[in-house]
Amino acid sequence: MEVSQVLHMNGGVGETSYANNSLLQQKVLTLTKPIREEAITKMYHQSMLPTTRGLGIADLGCSSGPNTLSVVSEVIKTVEKLCQELNHESPEYQVFLNDLPRNDFNSIFRSLDNFKEKLNKEMASRFNGPCFFLAGVPGSFYGRLFPPKSLHFVHSSYSLQWLSQVPEGLENNKGNIYMASTSPSNVLKAYYKQFQRDFSLFLECRAREVVEGGSMVLTFLGRKSDNPSSKECCLIWELMAKALNYLASKGIIKEEEVDSFNIPQYSPSPSEVEEEVLKEGSFEINRIEVSPVSWDATYHNDWNTMENDEFSASEILASDCGHNVAKCMRAVAEPLLINHFGSEAIIEDVFKEYQEILTHYMSKEKTEFINVTLWMSRKV
Amino acid sequence: MEVSQVLHMNGGVGETSYANNSLLQQKVLTLTKPIREEAITKMYHQSMLPTTRGLGIADLGCSSGPNTLSVVSEVIKTVEKLCQELNHESPEYQVFLNDLPRNDFNSIFRSLDNFKEKLNKEMASRFNGPCFFLAGVPGSFYGRLFPPKSLHFVHSSYSLQWLSQVPEGLENNKGNIYMASTSPSNVLKAYYKQFQRDFSLFLECRAREVVEGGSMVLTFLGRKSDNPSSKECCLIWELMAKALNYLASKGIIKEEEVDSFNIPQYSPSPSEVEEEVLKEGSFEINRIEVSPVSWDATYHNDWNTMENDEFSASEILASDCGHNVAKCMRAVAEPLLINHFGSEAIIEDVFKEYQEILTHYMSKEKTEFINVTLWMSRKV
Repeated sequence: MEVSQVLHMNGGVGETSYANNSLLQQKVLTLTKPIREEAITKMYHQSMLPTTRGLGIADLGCSSGPNTLSVVSEVIKTVEKLCQELNHESPEYQVFLNDLPRNDFNSIFRSLDNFKEKLNKEMASRFNGPCFFLAGVPGSFYGRLFPPKSLHFVHSSYSLQWLSQVPEGLENNKGNIYMASTSPSNVLKAYYKQFQRDFSLFLECRAREVVEGGSMVLTFLGRKSDNPSSKECCLIWELMAKALNYLASKGIIKEEEVDSFNIPQYSPSPSEVEEEVLKEGSFEINRIEVSPVSWDATYHNDWNTMENDEFSASEILASDCGHNVAKCMRAVAEPLLINHFGSEAIIEDVFKEYQEILTHYMSKEKTEFINVTLWMSRKV
Repeated sequence: MEVSQVLHMNGGVGETSYANNSLLQQKVLTLTKPIREEAITKMYHQSMLPTTRGLGIADLGCSSGPNTLSVVSEVIKTVEKLCQELNHESPEYQVFLNDLPRNDFNSIFRSLDNFKEKLNKEMASRFNGPCFFLAGVPGSFYGRLFPPKSLHFVHSSYSLQWLSQVPEGLENNKGNIYMASTSPSNVLKAYYKQFQRDFSLFLECRAREVVEGGSMVLTFLGRKSDNPSSKECCLIWELMAKALNYLASKGIIKEEEVDSFNIPQYSPSPSEVEEEVLKEGSFEINRIEVSPVSWDATYHNDWNTMENDEFSASEILASDCGHNVAKCMRAVAEPLLINHFGSEAIIEDVFKEYQEILTHYMSKEKTEFINVTLWMSRKV
């Protein structure tokens, strides 16, 4: 499949960037920091990283918020610390930031001066600060993006759950906008097939781009259960479908339009992921971690692991949670909704209704996303 | 010197991108196409270009107009034609588009799908079209931008005449905004020193980035004369100074502000360029070409070399010329003026006055920019 076709399809479903929720992203990045550190440390101790050549680092689905450059900064600090410990020279960093062409690369590039200044200050003990090349790479990661064997460490957070397109053959997924308990079995199959096609293509492309011994640490929305329509991954969209169906019942949007709206996402189980990695054959899995994170990113069920906490438990009310989650999901779903329903005017109505439904639901039940973090090495 | 410092200085003088006038640029690109083709052909015939690895192409000061990707397209077509003739496999193209961080990279990236589609169609005879990686590289070219030995062909058009900063010590350049016939000798020296510092830094950086045998074809505003304040390079700014002095005499802007405004540009002579290349020592000059191009890019003194000509000589009147040149110079100078005078309100006045002065002048004299095109190879 041509890269440009994939891009076109991505464009067609209205996405502007893969990962666009900064607070949830930040929480997930904090949770997954140890595994990135371990991956880089292992590569260094096994002498898998170059000392004379540049060190290629890619962030796939980098988005353009405050987290974009924080991952780069974290990875560089980890490597610099290891270099000091092992008495190695610092490598030259070749950082590639990837996202879809409609991502706001300008805002990343315009924050680079401040970023470099800050990084140089923090690294002051290492003479002039690290030598650092940065490039923006626009395009879908379901296609080739980088030269052969150019990457040593690949990071991606909250992007790989996005499919390259809405699966075909979802005509009878009426009343739903994603896989749901009421979805016919052909719908579940179509979603799974699209995931298999996309994820195997992703692996094939990266297999050509990552050097032997190089690592990938990928975090995405997933599930624990074998059931692809289980609540842990589907409920968040079922509640949005409820809001849309309510608006259809009021005549604000058309029922057929809700019926034909489907989210191009798939939340795989660890075993589904593992199966594709084994099938493709170029990568060895070091670890798959599954971790829950509250729907409401301001709510700390993992209280002790968070830093710079501005919130206290007593402040959190169900209505705040509903508001926060609706806001978070709006960042994700708004472009998809506008693209499909062809109107910005309905957005306020959708998210007002959605917030109410979320508030009601969250007052009764514990609500969590399931993160799957996959750490792999390119086979030698 | 730190890259970030250079960037900061570039930012400080208010530039948003190096080359921002599309019609003049297009004309210059047409004029310099043969030398790029010759450079690439020579590399191919001397087996200087990789057949298995990627081919690294950089455009320094790429801007973000219709010409940005046309250079890329032209270079790829030249290489593909050579590959067919010599029965070589197509290389993988690694295209790096560089400009200052405030350049509009988003608009380039968003036009990529169409560009790739068009290129694939045009290359249809070669199976699936060329394999193509593109990255945006924000930063000043007066600093390192790319990994060591990663580039085979470097192109830059109408960018290298920009200095990294306004030279220091121009306090007594009163009434002028650039080098002028009335500039004191220390002003001419300060400009020349800044050119030497910047251009030698440019050469040092590229020497590390360009592979042995790789080529650079650089076109910039220059002059034929040995006199750095000769009319051929300075008159265009002397007329703008005249407009600013007129506004100062009317009290619309302050005289001191005109006195302290200086354009961070230098238009070197071929021998000044040659001297720096010899001094740095890493590059061999294959050719230096000097070519005039009319101030008014719609005016065709080089009538027969232009394609898709929409204009006819009879339509061209001095008033149109004044309008066109003022518009062209506005694209270049507006950010500098706003940055220095701190006001957008004066811009209309400045360019109204400038247009009148230009119209008057151009009705009497032939007015041309001098392009210097430098073709060099990285020594083996």
